[in-house]
Amino acid sequence: MNIKAHTDLSRLCVHTITTKPWDIATAARHYAAAGIKGITVWRDALEGRDIRQTGNMLREEGLSIVSLCRGGFFPAKEKAKRKLAIDDNRKAIEEAVALGAPLIVLVCGADPGQSLEDSRQQIRDGIAAVLDDASAAGVKLAIEPLHPMYADTRSAINTLAQANDMAEALRSPLVGVAVDVYHLWWDPALEQEIARCGENSHLFAFHICDWKSPTTDMLLDRGLMGEGCIPIRKIRSWVEATGFSGFNEVEIFSIKYWQEDQSAFLEKIVTAYREHA
Amino acid sequence: MNIKAHTDLSRLCVHTITTKPWDIATAARHYAAAGIKGITVWRDALEGRDIRQTGNMLREEGLSIVSLCRGGFFPAKEKAKRKLAIDDNRKAIEEAVALGAPLIVLVCGADPGQSLEDSRQQIRDGIAAVLDDASAAGVKLAIEPLHPMYADTRSAINTLAQANDMAEALRSPLVGVAVDVYHLWWDPALEQEIARCGENSHLFAFHICDWKSPTTDMLLDRGLMGEGCIPIRKIRSWVEATGFSGFNEVEIFSIKYWQEDQSAFLEKIVTAYREHA
Repeated sequence: MNIKAHTDLSRLCVHTITTKPWDIATAARHYAAAGIKGITVWRDALEGRDIRQTGNMLREEGLSIVSLCRGGFFPAKEKAKRKLAIDDNRKAIEEAVALGAPLIVLVCGADPGQSLEDSRQQIRDGIAAVLDDASAAGVKLAIEPLHPMYADTRSAINTLAQANDMAEALRSPLVGVAVDVYHLWWDPALEQEIARCGENSHLFAFHICDWKSPTTDMLLDRGLMGEGCIPIRKIRSWVEATGFSGFNEVEIFSIKYWQEDQSAFLEKIVTAYREHA
Repeated sequence: MNIKAHTDLSRLCVHTITTKPWDIATAARHYAAAGIKGITVWRDALEGRDIRQTGNMLREEGLSIVSLCRGGFFPAKEKAKRKLAIDDNRKAIEEAVALGAPLIVLVCGADPGQSLEDSRQQIRDGIAAVLDDASAAGVKLAIEPLHPMYADTRSAINTLAQANDMAEALRSPLVGVAVDVYHLWWDPALEQEIARCGENSHLFAFHICDWKSPTTDMLLDRGLMGEGCIPIRKIRSWVEATGFSGFNEVEIFSIKYWQEDQSAFLEKIVTAYREHA
């Protein structure tokens, strides 16, 4: 495998949710002090804050704002709920503009009360409904396929092939995909589907963490890079072979790590990034 | 969807693990009394018993022995462990013969200490290594693709496409696949891959239960048919469109249901089978 370890942190981004106990100002200060160059902002971190000022604060810390997490959750059996979801995605686009985030990651959603096919159609319709707003705002949208264990409620888009199909069907330079190793590492078609992203120039984001054996919680037990069985560096080689030169975004939801001292955890992230990502 | 509810229990099979608190004699007595016609025997239910006599007991209760669960677990980084796994699969074939089971379900295995590609190759090599034994014994082998959330340790075969590929590559009338709705319901290629099983006459088993929202345990929180979001009857229509006329096997691992009175649980299974399967 012709890929080298990261020699610096110029392409390291951390998601605010990774260090959830910190408010965004504390997170930004610590990320910057550690030499981290990118931040992806989860919307909960913006609650009660002036978003424009928060964006300025992040840039003053020397951080690139990589993306806003998250839009999506389009499907619902009830039409009124779908309308609310579309409204919320328009709000997310406004927030991205205020923050200065060039990209929104879409966790597309699913409703266990209807078929996956219906949920997928509603996802496509939902993205189509906000495309003009995204275009006017100059904000890109990344469809993030989620692990099949989330197909009931979090996303009816569960493989990169599905995300690629949908991005291609929507025919907009603003719509692409996010590749998260946690969701996709098991897929035998992963290498070819990542290459397909490259052909379409729509690989917009690359998220990393690890899959622990055993995994004790379906949502909140993600591992640090190197703690699990995901071939992160191999997958990165496929991503970079498409020409991708964006950030490697560390997105870890972990009850275990959230209970630790977050400064010590951030040091572990930096070490794991250098050694395993 | 042109498929009807089950009007009788002639094609209902229950896995011994579904009523785990019962020993196999108790299970058989209750299944038969409920009008259930098939039983799939998990190997733990045979521990300490004379297997031939157990097979006779089951037939005397009027039960068809549908399959023996489970063989497989072929991959291991260490060669000595792979050898042990092959020996254990040979033992399973002997047990199937003694019991009078025509089929062994393979949970293929995975080793998080090596790549998925290596695990897949070892699965193929492992099945190939026992094929002569299976052939001499007249015992069929069903590759069961497992949900991607089990790709680290339980199976590196996670889609029906992969199972079909492997079954076709092994080119034996003894090797086919098992379709379990719990593992495969999310897959957008499921209908076409079930049809492909039919073209090759290698759909050997059909397992049912449901995916609960939320699911609270990655292994032991399966639902009764109708309790979750799996379109069981739609998937059954695809299975039957291949010409499949075998049993509908109820395989539920559930801490919750194992804590209940098993007679009451069996009644719920029968009701759920009529109403939702």
